Amino acid sequence: MALHTPRKINSSPYLPFGDKQDAPFYGKDILSVKQFSRADIDYIFGVAREMEEMVRRIGSFDLLKGKILANLFYESSTRTFSSFTSAMERLGGSVIPINEVRYSSVSKGESLPDTVRSLESYADVIVLRHPEMGSAELAAKYARKPIINAGDGMGEHPTQALLDLFTIMQEMRHIDGLTVTMVGDLKYGRTVHSLARLLALYDVRLNYVSPDILKMPAHILEEVKQHNIPQAEFNCLDDVIAQSDALYVTRVQKERFEDLDQYEGVKNAFVITPETMESAKEEMIVMHPLPRVGEIRMEVDDDPRAAYFRQVEYGLYVRMALLAMVLGKA
Amino acid sequence: MALHTPRKINSSPYLPFGDKQDAPFYGKDILSVKQFSRADIDYIFGVAREMEEMVRRIGSFDLLKGKILANLFYESSTRTFSSFTSAMERLGGSVIPINEVRYSSVSKGESLPDTVRSLESYADVIVLRHPEMGSAELAAKYARKPIINAGDGMGEHPTQALLDLFTIMQEMRHIDGLTVTMVGDLKYGRTVHSLARLLALYDVRLNYVSPDILKMPAHILEEVKQHNIPQAEFNCLDDVIAQSDALYVTRVQKERFEDLDQYEGVKNAFVITPETMESAKEEMIVMHPLPRVGEIRMEVDDDPRAAYFRQVEYGLYVRMALLAMVLGKA
Amino acid sequence: MALHTPRKINSSPYLPFGDKQDAPFYGKDILSVKQFSRADIDYIFGVAREMEEMVRRIGSFDLLKGKILANLFYESSTRTFSSFTSAMERLGGSVIPINEVRYSSVSKGESLPDTVRSLESYADVIVLRHPEMGSAELAAKYARKPIINAGDGMGEHPTQALLDLFTIMQEMRHIDGLTVTMVGDLKYGRTVHSLARLLALYDVRLNYVSPDILKMPAHILEEVKQHNIPQAEFNCLDDVIAQSDALYVTRVQKERFEDLDQYEGVKNAFVITPETMESAKEEMIVMHPLPRVGEIRMEVDDDPRAAYFRQVEYGLYVRMALLAMVLGKA
Repeated sequence: MALHTPRKINSSPYLPFGDKQDAPFYGKDILSVKQFSRADIDYIFGVAREMEEMVRRIGSFDLLKGKILANLFYESSTRTFSSFTSAMERLGGSVIPINEVRYSSVSKGESLPDTVRSLESYADVIVLRHPEMGSAELAAKYARKPIINAGDGMGEHPTQALLDLFTIMQEMRHIDGLTVTMVGDLKYGRTVHSLARLLALYDVRLNYVSPDILKMPAHILEEVKQHNIPQAEFNCLDDVIAQSDALYVTRVQKERFEDLDQYEGVKNAFVITPETMESAKEEMIVMHPLPRVGEIRMEVDDDPRAAYFRQVEYGLYVRMALLAMVLGKA
Repeated sequence: MALHTPRKINSSPYLPFGDKQDAPFYGKDILSVKQFSRADIDYIFGVAREMEEMVRRIGSFDLLKGKILANLFYESSTRTFSSFTSAMERLGGSVIPINEVRYSSVSKGESLPDTVRSLESYADVIVLRHPEMGSAELAAKYARKPIINAGDGMGEHPTQALLDLFTIMQEMRHIDGLTVTMVGDLKYGRTVHSLARLLALYDVRLNYVSPDILKMPAHILEEVKQHNIPQAEFNCLDDVIAQSDALYVTRVQKERFEDLDQYEGVKNAFVITPETMESAKEEMIVMHPLPRVGEIRMEVDDDPRAAYFRQVEYGLYVRMALLAMVLGKA
Repeated sequence: MALHTPRKINSSPYLPFGDKQDAPFYGKDILSVKQFSRADIDYIFGVAREMEEMVRRIGSFDLLKGKILANLFYESSTRTFSSFTSAMERLGGSVIPINEVRYSSVSKGESLPDTVRSLESYADVIVLRHPEMGSAELAAKYARKPIINAGDGMGEHPTQALLDLFTIMQEMRHIDGLTVTMVGDLKYGRTVHSLARLLALYDVRLNYVSPDILKMPAHILEEVKQHNIPQAEFNCLDDVIAQSDALYVTRVQKERFEDLDQYEGVKNAFVITPETMESAKEEMIVMHPLPRVGEIRMEVDDDPRAAYFRQVEYGLYVRMALLAMVLGKA
């Protein structure tokens, strides 16, 4: 996997004309947050900041002109699909939109290894969204072109975690020393698991606020603990809102509860309202992976601390950076 | 709304590099035909004619190179989707195709304001097709980037109305003095309502030919009347075909009738055949918003007065003009 | 049809700016393998080899910059859709992706002639995939712009046949003198029918290996016989594997058998395994139109004679060649 594995693109049929072959990440897969060191992240964020600068100044530019991205989505995700499409187009590249792949087991349809080995004749990089954990790694094993994992079921969604971290970095100007509070469904939320892992590379304090049945899994707590990161768990946001520098909100879904009375009892404890914001620091930021349904009230949107729409935009820059990097242009 | 409201694009994160910020419509939404004055229409049609000229001479050009259109379709419309895609691509821009949005109420999925506030990080302009009346206005209220309404249920479809009017203008070389006859379902047909409103800005005579249960709604008649436009209603095309300069045909759908005998009795009165054309002026044009099913016989297609496929092409030029204008490039 | 019919593009509204109007295939439809002479194929393959050379050297280039392809798919085919998209994008052109067309009979929806006459206002060439035999020819009859048949039900899929033949040519460096063995379902397999027709233009020997109920249809045998091509039929691959230069494998589908015992009895006779390959010539190639399910074991993939993924790549070059040719740029 990833960073220090042999580069793949040299076995490609396309001569890497003008590619910076000695660039970090050139020809690499992006499969998991676990593949990144803090130095890697510094590098990615440096490129992402250049992307932001260029987009703000001139909108788009031709860094990846002539390159093709296959956007291979086995499950629908309008936001992630659009984000990668925009990232590629703002860099002057083209996209093959593949939205309608019906997922079918090996007995019924084509295997994922066959699909990616076909698609890589058409594209220079493949972004894969797939409902099965491990699918991105499987695809990467067979593909000669770089694979970017855009979510593999209960597995990883590394570009989401990177954009979450980039949001904190850009909004707060640093990460070391911050207290980050994660709220809501911490058990099933893929994004909070990956973000906790990335934050563990920094000198942070982590608070977890959730109903008892939706607590952060033990193996994540254990992983984070290895990095000597202070962690604390809470049932109620009131206990920690005042000390938080970043609040990462996820949805508590009714369907997770067997006992609906239990759901009714806790649901409002994890909803962000203008009143919640009154207890918060003046320079705190509120984040959310989106879509949100009711867990942050719309009245909060006008609060300058509401960072969740800016977070979407930071995602564009991170994905532009990753695409440019794996294609040897950054 | 629209024309004389404050420009939106200045609040965008993207500096409008090279944009003509003093251009009319720069940064505006296109939501309703009601927002256009006759001078506005003259301006739009002037730009559309330049687009036609350029397309005929060189096919495509790079006026919107680097700009991105999000084609956000909550309901399927192959024709409108393709038309905007082509318009953007012929101008050198890129498209994010979003076709599969399942419409979901606020309780189930993401709200439209949240969706557009996310998408505008990825795109420079959003074309929205949505089944609910008022949705385009709602989206525009929240979006910093221009919204173009591509149909909001029983509401408006302003670019269709503009292309209909542009077709008459280009085919007949003028609009003042013409008699325009609308045929078919005038009650539910969004296109005829909008076209009547636009035509009311000119010195025209309007005929409405429909079954009794599908007559032009009273509020449209009233609106048109404010402009002192002569209007007349008929049950049969034979009474007015000879005096018409433009015939705008829409489909009379069986499903609109509770009494099928009634449908059987009237259905042929609103079908255009070669015989119909024999009574028509030599320079009359036949228009249709398409798709047609049987309301214009295929034998009419070879008649030079059959303008409905040319109408499709005029639509391309009008949409190219609108995209260039709201993006400050025309 | 096709090659020697009058060119269509001159009736287009777009002046063919810079197009080579005297180029072979300029403005032509690609509907059937029957339209190609051996000289035509030589020409196409010459252009395809130039495309391969350019792609390997620089990835993409702007030969079709400003041109638009409408990818009109009435049935889903991820591979063919992606292949044409990539072909157009590698040539600098743009694509209108139309994936969601629900096929509807004339009584319910728009007719195919109306759809193509609308789309051709938006695009310079239309690639059509449709479930009904004869649909591509019908579309071509009405369209002013070139139509490329990307599969019309039980009819033709000429670009697949051309890429199959190109694969043999590129892998073996010649076609005359070769023995080509087709295996599997030869009755319903559109690809083997078209390939047999094309191979009949060369000095080859054809073997057909299939269950009795899935034999090559008599009319194909008869057509091929007109060209004095030696043909032989077999029930078992063992009899011919050693003498084959190219093995073209298709799937034997369980659903084709009324008697499942019969299926169980024959199914393994048509599966390619590493053991099969032991009996084969050292320079033989194994081809497959893909997707495969189990008819070639994955263990065969690493055999250098496994040509089916390279075949996908050859398809890109053939489709690039055809697009450039019908648009007058090759």
